[in-house]
Amino acid sequence: MLIPIIKKTQAGIVQVLQSVPLLVSLDERVLYHFAEYAQEASEKKGATLFAPDSVNDRFFVMCSGWVKLFRETLGGDEAVVDIMTAPYCFGEIGLASTEGMPYGAAVIEDATFITIPRFLLVEEVRRNSVFGLAVLQDLTRQKISRDMEIEHRTVQTAPQRIGCFLLKLCGDRDAGAVTLHLPYDKTVIASRLGMQPETFSRALSRLRDEVGLTIKGASVDVSDIKKLMSYTCSACSSSFPCEDH
Amino acid sequence: MLIPIIKKTQAGIVQVLQSVPLLVSLDERVLYHFAEYAQEASEKKGATLFAPDSVNDRFFVMCSGWVKLFRETLGGDEAVVDIMTAPYCFGEIGLASTEGMPYGAAVIEDATFITIPRFLLVEEVRRNSVFGLAVLQDLTRQKISRDMEIEHRTVQTAPQRIGCFLLKLCGDRDAGAVTLHLPYDKTVIASRLGMQPETFSRALSRLRDEVGLTIKGASVDVSDIKKLMSYTCSACSSSFPCEDH
Repeated sequence: MLIPIIKKTQAGIVQVLQSVPLLVSLDERVLYHFAEYAQEASEKKGATLFAPDSVNDRFFVMCSGWVKLFRETLGGDEAVVDIMTAPYCFGEIGLASTEGMPYGAAVIEDATFITIPRFLLVEEVRRNSVFGLAVLQDLTRQKISRDMEIEHRTVQTAPQRIGCFLLKLCGDRDAGAVTLHLPYDKTVIASRLGMQPETFSRALSRLRDEVGLTIKGASVDVSDIKKLMSYTCSACSSSFPCEDH
Repeated sequence: MLIPIIKKTQAGIVQVLQSVPLLVSLDERVLYHFAEYAQEASEKKGATLFAPDSVNDRFFVMCSGWVKLFRETLGGDEAVVDIMTAPYCFGEIGLASTEGMPYGAAVIEDATFITIPRFLLVEEVRRNSVFGLAVLQDLTRQKISRDMEIEHRTVQTAPQRIGCFLLKLCGDRDAGAVTLHLPYDKTVIASRLGMQPETFSRALSRLRDEVGLTIKGASVDVSDIKKLMSYTCSACSSSFPCEDH
């Protein structure tokens, strides 16, 4: 169950929608139309927003916090397929289909959202081919990022995959040293990277020794970003800085 | 370099295009328009069709043979992101962008194609929102199949991943026993599944012992499909028979 809240004006909602890459090509007039149907909600860490394969007729624009998208095997194992935060949205994937969602969504750090009925997106794609192409472009980007992920799981070592995750958290790539704050639990980072928690711990220690990290709880000091880059990015087909979020 | 051939009439080309899932919603009139710009080509095993990140302004409809789509790391390793055969197409991914291709394509078993300028697809998406939604649906399917792949690499063992590959080659899932013909080299199957050749050999032997396979060169006898299914599909979130090709 989503906990509804009302905090934002219509203009406030439109402002959030304007920040979402998927919606950036839309006219303000269209976004105000979306805002009429929008609901705000908040959820605590641990809450399930929808289960895998369930029917879900709204898409979620993230305002704060973190959400994992996941699948579950018949044997009960879980695979995390993506981790979302603002200004991104999820749940638009079934845009062109009436089937159940290909993933479930659960909150991993307290989160707030704006939810919007998905039929508004479908109407807009039918009406506006420029938006149709924007949605295509967004899906293409997602598909390519999945290809990259498959590549990484094939050719990168576990410490390199953690290095890649840390590099994406580094804002200023020219700084020699930087302190990073891990945005969510290490166990979630491990599943996001497709590792067992023990593998993750071992790989993190190895990365620490190889490139000089200092790790205290959720805080990671990188003493030399360039060293981390050269250790990590040699096993990747993208040139750094890469565009993946 | 593609070796051009002329074998098919315009009606023959239209017939091929009608079999492609991505194009199935298009009017015959539109397909004849595509056929005017179509070129046929054939290539031998080993030929590169285009390199990763290269500019490529045509999409490829497969008529026969097999092609791998791949990425290459800075360190020179290769990751196979997909393997294609008829009636599928590739190269449409850059549909909505002018950037280089996110993958390269190389022939792994002698292949014939029809190639079509991609701008025709873009024109049709702009003109025809039903086709726009069909393209969205196709990309969504591709993205979900990538999520499944990431899931498999997370939760399936190497023998289970080979089992899943074999099950997809089984036509009649009700037959107790079946003889499969591996469609391309075992080394390519290994890279497709993200395994080193040695890991693949070990995992195949283990699968053989667990579910009762007889392997002679490229031919694999499965003595009991149900046993293979229950061994493999317990570590998957899809219910078998799954729709993945």
